[in-house]
Amino acid sequence: MSDPKISLSDMRERIDSIDRQIQELISERARRAQEVAQVKGAGLSAIDYYRPEREAHVLRMVVDRNDGPLPDTEMVRLFREIMSSCLAQEDPLKIGYLGPEGTFSEQAVRKHFGHAAYSLPLGSIEEVFQEVAAGNADFGVVPVENSGQGMIQITLDLFLTSEAIICGEVELRVHQCLHSQNGRLEDVKRVYAHAQSLQQCKSWLRLNLPTAECIAVSSNAEAARLARHADDVAAIAGETAGRVYGLKTVAEAIEDRADNTTRFLVIGRSLFPPSGNDRTSLLVTVNDKPGALYDVLSPLARHKVSMNRIESRPAHTGKWQYAFFIDISGHISDEGVQAAVKEIDGNAGTVRVLGSYPVALP
Amino acid sequence: MSDPKISLSDMRERIDSIDRQIQELISERARRAQEVAQVKGAGLSAIDYYRPEREAHVLRMVVDRNDGPLPDTEMVRLFREIMSSCLAQEDPLKIGYLGPEGTFSEQAVRKHFGHAAYSLPLGSIEEVFQEVAAGNADFGVVPVENSGQGMIQITLDLFLTSEAIICGEVELRVHQCLHSQNGRLEDVKRVYAHAQSLQQCKSWLRLNLPTAECIAVSSNAEAARLARHADDVAAIAGETAGRVYGLKTVAEAIEDRADNTTRFLVIGRSLFPPSGNDRTSLLVTVNDKPGALYDVLSPLARHKVSMNRIESRPAHTGKWQYAFFIDISGHISDEGVQAAVKEIDGNAGTVRVLGSYPVALP
Repeated sequence: MSDPKISLSDMRERIDSIDRQIQELISERARRAQEVAQVKGAGLSAIDYYRPEREAHVLRMVVDRNDGPLPDTEMVRLFREIMSSCLAQEDPLKIGYLGPEGTFSEQAVRKHFGHAAYSLPLGSIEEVFQEVAAGNADFGVVPVENSGQGMIQITLDLFLTSEAIICGEVELRVHQCLHSQNGRLEDVKRVYAHAQSLQQCKSWLRLNLPTAECIAVSSNAEAARLARHADDVAAIAGETAGRVYGLKTVAEAIEDRADNTTRFLVIGRSLFPPSGNDRTSLLVTVNDKPGALYDVLSPLARHKVSMNRIESRPAHTGKWQYAFFIDISGHISDEGVQAAVKEIDGNAGTVRVLGSYPVALP
Repeated sequence: MSDPKISLSDMRERIDSIDRQIQELISERARRAQEVAQVKGAGLSAIDYYRPEREAHVLRMVVDRNDGPLPDTEMVRLFREIMSSCLAQEDPLKIGYLGPEGTFSEQAVRKHFGHAAYSLPLGSIEEVFQEVAAGNADFGVVPVENSGQGMIQITLDLFLTSEAIICGEVELRVHQCLHSQNGRLEDVKRVYAHAQSLQQCKSWLRLNLPTAECIAVSSNAEAARLARHADDVAAIAGETAGRVYGLKTVAEAIEDRADNTTRFLVIGRSLFPPSGNDRTSLLVTVNDKPGALYDVLSPLARHKVSMNRIESRPAHTGKWQYAFFIDISGHISDEGVQAAVKEIDGNAGTVRVLGSYPVALP
């Protein structure tokens, strides 16, 4: 509880004292991180002692401990940046991604590696794989699934022909809302939004505003600005955008796929140990015969391994072959996962472990 | 000194304990920030209790206290983000800037306001001024000086016709270096770089590598990649880029203007109190008569106010009038500054105080 008798300058002095302690601790943390680097061998680059499983573990503890007032996402972001700065005391990590700068892919790089990492915008998803394979980038970040468009086939296909290993996943969530000046759906005659957002919310608009005119503008922020001026105009925009423009929310999560998330994979050259909450991605190639998929899935069920995702692709390696991309819960070093994979491999098909990595953080 | 007998897991436990303390303190800081907001009046937006002079003061203390191992820039960055998160507990600040996303202007927004502020990419510098004036953005960030091109005239001219008040400045520094595989200047036959970087280093190249072939590529990162493959190829790129690509530095700071800085102004709608190390920007309109500039400058000298910058523009307000943009050290509430301005105003010309604001941090 705040004491009303405490003056503003007293409050600021308290904050100054907190800041002094935070700074001492961050410096202390940076020194400890240097010691860890020294134990592992002096003069190395960040890649030599970067441990994604350790980072995921640290961030999960941050979430577990957090009881506000900052939301989990902000607290995780601050710790990500602190770790990013500590790690960049040696040569920073080089992260390749699909450029140009300012895209969702760059946001994913920053969300996962913080701002002290060195990001390399590249021309194509294929180039990201190549630069990681050649060692020019330590890691790459590639989009793999967009809840609007489903799996991104080019990324999956590149796993068929490359040796890339999945070292992490990143999720970016974007919710679309309908905002207006007075918040009343029945008053809306026109809807402004970026063309892509109009597209993403097509079904909802057809159902709830069948006669409204839909007008594409340069951005959703622009749409929110326009909606302030009349009661019969609404804008599609994120929660924050509506709030900062002083609009009322008419409806939330109006995108056709309710969970509007883009999922990215972090690719690298080696497998990391378990973090305590991991996912394993498998590439299973089978011959096209009846029951092939059943033969793949039954060992998983038998060993109580839960499957999170499956996607089939024609394999380019031989006639009548199919490839399944399968995501399961657990790390490849877990007993059950290991046993199930061993049973599938050689019997039902050929298994390649694409990677075991920490489940995405908020 | 690190004790070689301490195991990796002991080290990690120590770091975990440090993290726990950092987190408690950040949460404590966020609670204190809420109290400050409550004292100023409940239910306000971030703009109602954002104090740039206080932030500048806090960050200067961070720099003063810092004795490593993290560099000042990283420590300042982390505290900027912590303050940004604490501030965004209420409605976040809205910052207009010259879009699109991913530009230098956005970097300046992030450097000054952190990642918890809400950034609005706008179509032109003029629009940034308009949105700030209309209250749709709390602040705007506009480029005002590029050491390559000098003052950015459009920004200066907008001050002639708007009521915008300067609330801060941000500097982004970019040093260009020449890097190659073996670091020997005499071996260089070809130089790769982005076209703009080749342009920025033209004089140095003409003087030091008159016969080398200059080849423009898509980015300096791309240039650094290419330079790894042959001893007779060099790349122009930043310090970090050369380092991460394992190249040796042939020469540093080779840009024609040694101090390759872009300076941005933060514009808002009100003047803030002094931070302890401030700059004041004046717009002085004078009639075109002999000695006009002397009459402007002598009161400054008399009151021992040092001038940092001057730029003249034809004023659009009347025939034969000139406008001078003058930056001086100190805050308009300082006695000497106030006295000098009073003497200039009415005698030598008409003075408008464009703003008094904290000097840019590293």
